[in-house]
Amino acid sequence: MRTQVAIVGAGPAGLLLSQLLGVEGVDSVVVERRSRAYVEARIRAGILESSTVDLLDAVGLGNRVHAAGDEHRGIYLQWPHERHHLDFVDLVGRSVWVYGQTDLTRDLGAARDAHGQQFAYEISDTAVHDIETEHPYVTYRDSAGVDQRLDADVVVGCDGSFGPCRSAVPERVRRTWERVYPYAWLGVLADVAPSTDELIYAWHPDGFALHSMRSATVSRLYLQVDAGASIDDWSDARIWDALAARLGHGQDGWELQRGPIAEKSVLPMRSHVSEPMRHGRLFLAGDAAHIVPPTGAKGLNLAVADVALLAPALVAMLRKNDPRLADAYSETALRRVWRCTHFSWWMTTMLHQSGDPFDAALQQSQLRWVTTSGAGAAGLAENYAGLPIGF
Amino acid sequence: MRTQVAIVGAGPAGLLLSQLLGVEGVDSVVVERRSRAYVEARIRAGILESSTVDLLDAVGLGNRVHAAGDEHRGIYLQWPHERHHLDFVDLVGRSVWVYGQTDLTRDLGAARDAHGQQFAYEISDTAVHDIETEHPYVTYRDSAGVDQRLDADVVVGCDGSFGPCRSAVPERVRRTWERVYPYAWLGVLADVAPSTDELIYAWHPDGFALHSMRSATVSRLYLQVDAGASIDDWSDARIWDALAARLGHGQDGWELQRGPIAEKSVLPMRSHVSEPMRHGRLFLAGDAAHIVPPTGAKGLNLAVADVALLAPALVAMLRKNDPRLADAYSETALRRVWRCTHFSWWMTTMLHQSGDPFDAALQQSQLRWVTTSGAGAAGLAENYAGLPIGF
Repeated sequence: MRTQVAIVGAGPAGLLLSQLLGVEGVDSVVVERRSRAYVEARIRAGILESSTVDLLDAVGLGNRVHAAGDEHRGIYLQWPHERHHLDFVDLVGRSVWVYGQTDLTRDLGAARDAHGQQFAYEISDTAVHDIETEHPYVTYRDSAGVDQRLDADVVVGCDGSFGPCRSAVPERVRRTWERVYPYAWLGVLADVAPSTDELIYAWHPDGFALHSMRSATVSRLYLQVDAGASIDDWSDARIWDALAARLGHGQDGWELQRGPIAEKSVLPMRSHVSEPMRHGRLFLAGDAAHIVPPTGAKGLNLAVADVALLAPALVAMLRKNDPRLADAYSETALRRVWRCTHFSWWMTTMLHQSGDPFDAALQQSQLRWVTTSGAGAAGLAENYAGLPIGF
Repeated sequence: MRTQVAIVGAGPAGLLLSQLLGVEGVDSVVVERRSRAYVEARIRAGILESSTVDLLDAVGLGNRVHAAGDEHRGIYLQWPHERHHLDFVDLVGRSVWVYGQTDLTRDLGAARDAHGQQFAYEISDTAVHDIETEHPYVTYRDSAGVDQRLDADVVVGCDGSFGPCRSAVPERVRRTWERVYPYAWLGVLADVAPSTDELIYAWHPDGFALHSMRSATVSRLYLQVDAGASIDDWSDARIWDALAARLGHGQDGWELQRGPIAEKSVLPMRSHVSEPMRHGRLFLAGDAAHIVPPTGAKGLNLAVADVALLAPALVAMLRKNDPRLADAYSETALRRVWRCTHFSWWMTTMLHQSGDPFDAALQQSQLRWVTTSGAGAAGLAENYAGLPIGF
């Protein structure tokens, strides 16, 4: 089989890339280790920056976000006995949207189906070859157990943190940065109306808590837990009690509504950046190149921003034989990657208990500053609501 | 001997307090372990916030600052091959002044002499007594070897980090926070015209460097060194070579001028906060209650801000029998203390090499943000140029 762009991974990055390329008349094939049902059902991010929504609008994919998503002007930041609202629209003129990654993935899949996109799901033994030549290719075993070879002009790794593409960049040119945090998030999806109109980020001596949501009837809630925590130690009752305490149930008349927990899991937290994001004819986008902790909701948006840079670069390279954007891709993308890596680290370390009382005192001073200084609030808002695409 | 306010320590905090009290007709006696010559000669801070200068102006002490000091609109922030100017006046409408602590101490001493201030220098065995009663007193051995007792309505500890006042607050009510940094500053005073019009804060892979100044003919320069560094390992030539490399000698035509080094020493770096800042009839101000690392130039200004709050509180307490400001002093002062403690920690950890490559990458992203984002730049400027007195 032969295509112009072989895309490894059918998550939002891979699907959006195929869409952006397709719109410009560049063919691609998307291959994916998991089943389509699995990919479309997995619970991941849920906050879109306005530039992400703008991009979706520009390629005709924004209708469902506008119809089913929920636009938020900002977030709440709180600590015991004080809740502050940061209004991003007032501060920096941009909003964010609550829209689940599962929904976005389904929208993208449907759009690609309408364009006749070629997919291969449930593949195994994926490997990338000859990326230092002009004739790279991908091999894999398809869902029927037949070995396949996909020849392409370029290969794009949208295959996440554990896929084969990142490690196809030779060790001699690859550099990685990593920070593993000494805590994790226990995330729950609950069938109950959110108890808040916008997300609540709560600093608390017992540990961080976040009240997010997926829809008018589904809440998404998180608790800081120890890095080695087991889900077995967290009964539903214990989870709700901890959420109530940390989110301030009963303070100033605010109440946390409880409901059936549909899903719960422990998410490890780390920062990871792999450079370069391009080697020869292999390009990396999204989690394949970088992981951020979830605080600040950058992961999905960063993947979208990568692809928004990469698509025109590949179009110029493959259709106009102009390599300049493709040559600049890694450096350009990494500027935003590091901005978001820093911001995610900053939000994470400002809100989570490290166990060091000096850290906790600094956090409280910083939270007070961020919620009372115009510059402090605008700094958070600018990063959270997101930089323009192309930054 | 009897006075209204016994002030332990004749540094800037103690002297300014005696001045502010004297103007309002409250008597004080200032006692100090060192000689007056020593106190007036020791090299310390050199940057005054504009609110510090405003306060000096308000009590008739600003003339020499305006005549001999140098007003700076901002600072330079740099890393290899890039130097950025942050203009605090444009960003937040406030400037800073270069004026040495030695000069300020002499001005304050002269002003107190003119008012007939009582001093006792070169004392020893200072101790604070009965602070939980309405009749506290200080005992010490005077410079002639005679034991003395100073009775007062209140005692104020302006005696720095190692003085007896902080530890006079009983353990049962005292709480301390501390962070010791794994690096130190090697500071030099050089008889050479500064090579820059405003301070240069330089991030560099070899370690932080700072080009400051005291006057048109005296430069003050600093290098990050290991926490355990010995001054014997740093010859003048090695110091100048390291400064030239880190400050970017030769880049874009900029040159670091060398000259005779008049003084050099290694300064350990730590953050320390002791709460409360008042217990009974004992009040703490300046380094007696808190230490910040020198990055960001907060130490002296924070001492001035403490005293600016404390003086009217003591005047109200002693002259009008109104205890409200005095009762609020610790909590009010600590808000600013923690803001500056956070800012000093932030500037320090943004600019010094920790040895962790992930930290270095975050620093570079943060420096780029601070120098290119309006919110980022204003956040630094607001904190560096200083909050209004009373914050």
